Amino acid sequence: MDKSFLDELRQGVRAVCGDFPDAYWRELDEKRAYPEDFVNALTAAGFLGALIPEEYGGSGLGITESSVILEEINRSGGNAGACHAQMYTMGTLLRHGSEQQKQRYLRKIADGSLRLQAFGVTEPNTGTDTTQLKTTAVRKGDKYIVNGQKVFISRTEYSDLMLLLVRTTPLDQVKKRTEGLSVLLVDLREAVGNGLTIKPIRTMMNHATTELFIEDLEVPVENLIGEEGKGFSYILDGMNAERILIAAECIGDGRWFIERAVGYANQRVVFKRPIGENQGIQFPISRAHVNLEAADLMRFRAAELFDAGQKCGAEANMAKLLAADASWEAANVTLQTHGGYGFAEEYDVERKFRETRLYQVAPISTNLILSYVAEHVLGLPRSY
Amino acid sequence: MDKSFLDELRQGVRAVCGDFPDAYWRELDEKRAYPEDFVNALTAAGFLGALIPEEYGGSGLGITESSVILEEINRSGGNAGACHAQMYTMGTLLRHGSEQQKQRYLRKIADGSLRLQAFGVTEPNTGTDTTQLKTTAVRKGDKYIVNGQKVFISRTEYSDLMLLLVRTTPLDQVKKRTEGLSVLLVDLREAVGNGLTIKPIRTMMNHATTELFIEDLEVPVENLIGEEGKGFSYILDGMNAERILIAAECIGDGRWFIERAVGYANQRVVFKRPIGENQGIQFPISRAHVNLEAADLMRFRAAELFDAGQKCGAEANMAKLLAADASWEAANVTLQTHGGYGFAEEYDVERKFRETRLYQVAPISTNLILSYVAEHVLGLPRSY
Amino acid sequence: MDKSFLDELRQGVRAVCGDFPDAYWRELDEKRAYPEDFVNALTAAGFLGALIPEEYGGSGLGITESSVILEEINRSGGNAGACHAQMYTMGTLLRHGSEQQKQRYLRKIADGSLRLQAFGVTEPNTGTDTTQLKTTAVRKGDKYIVNGQKVFISRTEYSDLMLLLVRTTPLDQVKKRTEGLSVLLVDLREAVGNGLTIKPIRTMMNHATTELFIEDLEVPVENLIGEEGKGFSYILDGMNAERILIAAECIGDGRWFIERAVGYANQRVVFKRPIGENQGIQFPISRAHVNLEAADLMRFRAAELFDAGQKCGAEANMAKLLAADASWEAANVTLQTHGGYGFAEEYDVERKFRETRLYQVAPISTNLILSYVAEHVLGLPRSY
Amino acid sequence: MDKSFLDELRQGVRAVCGDFPDAYWRELDEKRAYPEDFVNALTAAGFLGALIPEEYGGSGLGITESSVILEEINRSGGNAGACHAQMYTMGTLLRHGSEQQKQRYLRKIADGSLRLQAFGVTEPNTGTDTTQLKTTAVRKGDKYIVNGQKVFISRTEYSDLMLLLVRTTPLDQVKKRTEGLSVLLVDLREAVGNGLTIKPIRTMMNHATTELFIEDLEVPVENLIGEEGKGFSYILDGMNAERILIAAECIGDGRWFIERAVGYANQRVVFKRPIGENQGIQFPISRAHVNLEAADLMRFRAAELFDAGQKCGAEANMAKLLAADASWEAANVTLQTHGGYGFAEEYDVERKFRETRLYQVAPISTNLILSYVAEHVLGLPRSY
Repeated sequence: MDKSFLDELRQGVRAVCGDFPDAYWRELDEKRAYPEDFVNALTAAGFLGALIPEEYGGSGLGITESSVILEEINRSGGNAGACHAQMYTMGTLLRHGSEQQKQRYLRKIADGSLRLQAFGVTEPNTGTDTTQLKTTAVRKGDKYIVNGQKVFISRTEYSDLMLLLVRTTPLDQVKKRTEGLSVLLVDLREAVGNGLTIKPIRTMMNHATTELFIEDLEVPVENLIGEEGKGFSYILDGMNAERILIAAECIGDGRWFIERAVGYANQRVVFKRPIGENQGIQFPISRAHVNLEAADLMRFRAAELFDAGQKCGAEANMAKLLAADASWEAANVTLQTHGGYGFAEEYDVERKFRETRLYQVAPISTNLILSYVAEHVLGLPRSY
Repeated sequence: MDKSFLDELRQGVRAVCGDFPDAYWRELDEKRAYPEDFVNALTAAGFLGALIPEEYGGSGLGITESSVILEEINRSGGNAGACHAQMYTMGTLLRHGSEQQKQRYLRKIADGSLRLQAFGVTEPNTGTDTTQLKTTAVRKGDKYIVNGQKVFISRTEYSDLMLLLVRTTPLDQVKKRTEGLSVLLVDLREAVGNGLTIKPIRTMMNHATTELFIEDLEVPVENLIGEEGKGFSYILDGMNAERILIAAECIGDGRWFIERAVGYANQRVVFKRPIGENQGIQFPISRAHVNLEAADLMRFRAAELFDAGQKCGAEANMAKLLAADASWEAANVTLQTHGGYGFAEEYDVERKFRETRLYQVAPISTNLILSYVAEHVLGLPRSY
Repeated sequence: MDKSFLDELRQGVRAVCGDFPDAYWRELDEKRAYPEDFVNALTAAGFLGALIPEEYGGSGLGITESSVILEEINRSGGNAGACHAQMYTMGTLLRHGSEQQKQRYLRKIADGSLRLQAFGVTEPNTGTDTTQLKTTAVRKGDKYIVNGQKVFISRTEYSDLMLLLVRTTPLDQVKKRTEGLSVLLVDLREAVGNGLTIKPIRTMMNHATTELFIEDLEVPVENLIGEEGKGFSYILDGMNAERILIAAECIGDGRWFIERAVGYANQRVVFKRPIGENQGIQFPISRAHVNLEAADLMRFRAAELFDAGQKCGAEANMAKLLAADASWEAANVTLQTHGGYGFAEEYDVERKFRETRLYQVAPISTNLILSYVAEHVLGLPRSY
Repeated sequence: MDKSFLDELRQGVRAVCGDFPDAYWRELDEKRAYPEDFVNALTAAGFLGALIPEEYGGSGLGITESSVILEEINRSGGNAGACHAQMYTMGTLLRHGSEQQKQRYLRKIADGSLRLQAFGVTEPNTGTDTTQLKTTAVRKGDKYIVNGQKVFISRTEYSDLMLLLVRTTPLDQVKKRTEGLSVLLVDLREAVGNGLTIKPIRTMMNHATTELFIEDLEVPVENLIGEEGKGFSYILDGMNAERILIAAECIGDGRWFIERAVGYANQRVVFKRPIGENQGIQFPISRAHVNLEAADLMRFRAAELFDAGQKCGAEANMAKLLAADASWEAANVTLQTHGGYGFAEEYDVERKFRETRLYQVAPISTNLILSYVAEHVLGLPRSY
């Protein structure tokens, strides 16, 4: 990794973010509105196409660089959750799409004229047990007829395209339950109202997540990504990228928190001295910083392996776990340091506090990471 | 403590709360609106006058019973923060007010025709260093002229009366910095617009807190509570009651969380079994429950001492610390147990999660309780 | 519970303990020797017969009082682990033994001429899955012929009698796996060398635990306690007593630690002030104290229920969990407060640190308590 | 860092350690004896001279490689505490000694004919406030006359040489309290009995630490290291090396623990399945592993900076904090996983548990690292 290039990249992202101050995000949060202007600016500056190869109009950068972009957005006080998915969702298209599909979509995604920000995987009754999903696609002529329901599918209201994981071969007709799933590319502009109903889910933070009700939705067969029945493995190989990128957002959150906590602790005077002079204030900030630094090393380690094409499952999962824990620790410390002011919306601490809490659960919960480490790294038996 | 009476009392409070389901509180939360109907119903049922002696129209109950009332409100899914202050704020009037003041106000507070829900103590630049407060009251004839600023004064928009802590003798003219402070009773119906400006502070939860700007506000001398210059001690002796009551609210929150967590863990099936069968889900719920039970014992111990007129500073502080920590632990566990659903507003988990977080900071922060225990219980030196 | 009687009792125990200073325990620890003199003094003073009814020569006290005795031993710097078992092991004899057995043994146990300090339950390959135990007793005439192996059976080298849990009906011949187990009273003075071999296990602390190898050991049929086949239930009903008593020992340890930590923090001067002035030193001590107080309330609550003959499984388990955690927290805090000196044997901190660690695991591990709470208190499914 | 060279180095150290199995260390521990044979073997294999430049007969390796050597010793089940000091103590001589001193000592240290394993810094009444030390050296002709007392000076009984920090200019005659301290090289073979008395301190683990009483000890002026009065800065610049090396030992301990925990959890069957199938067993092991991995990245980061001659104070301190916490977490998890067996000496878990606990306190306590990070990394005020 070329440190000076990364520094330059950081400066570039900061320059864009500089136009979107705390008040911008705070107002959107209150309205649970989408950061349209911000996403446009970011796309215009080329940052959302970071992972798209140059031949398709992107920047052709790696996960390392992409993670730095998302980190800086969160570090600036913003919330990359509004647009991060484009980065890794696109990867499925890039790795498994046909040349024709790539030509058709990637260039437009890179230049912002098309948004591919949604990936419909999770369902109400299956949780993380993905292979049990109930949404089916049955081929009829040159179309798939899709039926089912999805939940916690984010940004569908602000996206033109969505990848959708469906079962194309019934569970009782496959040898392994991981077979028989497929990925379809759904054009949301056509689908909504024609078989697809989107219902927003209001959440603790501004996250634009939704529920999808799918009834006889027609998807052209040419929109199948890769081979039929291999969708599960396509999902899996995008997960490491997602975890590394989310880890980077957590690092960005954590940096923002520490900076605010230190700033406030230095400036706020009670009992005739800055509160930061109290070890009861200072030590928890120090510790959160140390944990953040450690998580950051793991994130760069995972990204380095990923970009080198090496196995990085353990590192990506550990980076996500460490970074999410560190950002949540930093969030609590910063809220606590601010006392009552931490709860006041105008300080933004409470907003970021709500936002970063999500990463204890998404895109994978702490428990599942611990299971992964136990089984796949340490060789302990599966526990569930 | 008479257990069967407490059980009856619980049933009574639950009956009132039963009319105000989750959706009621959820809607108020979204609008940051005041639970007017709920407070009226609670007052009509006589619960908010629990601590007012029967001779002044109240129920003449103790802190033990009062704490049970607040606990049940929070346990029902509601938020007693909207009205709890009336209970302990009234205590200052009861203990230190003149017979005339008590006759004039307590009966009406008991029957709900007057609300005394605000106590103006904290200021922007003094934090918990109360004796440094800058709001002054200068006597002119039969009036005090009050000038200054307060922050985080809750419910002033929904209260008729407010107690206000002011400095009546300048700091450089008193022997001890705890002298020279006085408590005034301010009639908010008259004061607003006549020297008092209220500015709401939007916060992470629905808490109706405000900032007060006071400029030449006139308060009749007859509204002085107790003796001039002794206000600080009046504040102090209400603190234990407040801490015990807040501890009870935390217990109520914690019970609500555990019930929801257990319910969801039993019913949600992933990987072909209820998620509650996983020790990774189950053990944290168990532990939160155990901590809650321990905190509850401390809360009843503190209340018992308080009601017996014995010293209970250590116990009240410990009860607050233990209960606030246990409710926050339960909140996190319950959010985590619910996965993505925990963040959806319609599950109410995220609302209660935001609400109970406040008690890590208010009415006294964890750090100050640890300092109290160190100095006043263990005999360690003051650390600040 | 009569507080003044408990205070008197505490004074009495302290008077005995006063003759056995830190150096006594330290020296025994180094040699892993048994506190013979201490146990004799304690027996002579009548404390070890606390739970034996007066009609059998004991004091006829309850668990509350007994727990105070053990607490004070540990609080004095000693280790009640050397003798606590006599208290609860005796309970099995008392509740289920025949009148003849009680007459024969209890009086001598009370006056110290006989020691019943061992209970042989756990086996190398069954862990806490007690019903799977492999030691068998086969009746031949008026004798049981016992064969098997036990592990972590404490104090067998310093006891005259031992209760032994054996399988008298093979597992495949009982309806429920909890049936078919029986309790035998083994006279160790005769058994050793005649079928019973004791092998000491050196452990981290001075705990006198052993492994037993049993080969054709003959036990007279008259030494069967209660009914054949009902041994498992006899074991179970002694567990709550044991957990409450161990909780009390942990409380005693915790008190000892806090006192030492506070003493050292007040007296040790670094950077020109007592180290206790640092919040980084002070706050962890405060917190450990608060947790200890909470645990202590649960311990007295459990003891109160037990002595009233009410169900106390939840409370006994929670008391054990809270107390063991609090004493371990206090141990770590105290070691940390002492810096390098904490590791020096002459400060005794390291000895108590090692001793109290055991109670995270014995007599029941934290995980099994969390499972108990989950299943039997909260209604979650069994997890194993 | 050349990974294949490090792997080779690891193999080399493992080969030496392979001759010293658990039983070797266990026996030494019981006797609190010095691992004479092990240290000889390690020296013979050239590992203890790793940091000594080739021109003085050493291997001329960096901190990275040296840290791997110590890590492997601890990972093998041994305790590098017996010899690690030679590595960093020697650094003071190397960086600040005269060419003559280096020629005279370094070669012999490298070949093992001389041991320089002790550094006398800490004193009974100064703790970590080093500049307040009371040991003085007064020059008389070509000798220094040294008087004072030191505590927790390790390995003096098993070392030929010791560096000693003394005050050569009284505190009231220097401008800054960090001035006026000097480093003397003491030949222990001559000093003991001639002004120097060594008193062993028995500690919780086998650590060979001692107290030194110094009365009119004569040290030749030629044994002054570097310039008179600059000793404090010489100490400081060895600290980062020490912290990185200790971090590596903690990593080694942690690896050993995780391996044992996983091994036992996979093999121990209770309730008809390996206990490792329980999330209550498995998740804490996973988490300890993750924390260890993070700490290890920080350790290599710090070592890399150190070896590149860059500033690494923050990283060295964070590595020590993270690694010591991770090894202690792993120690607790492993002890807990083993249940009662964890406490039995023959499993070695309890021994390593005691050994690794030291690194919460030495060579610098967690609190002081948190202070360092607060002040020197985050810009918060000094808290003491």
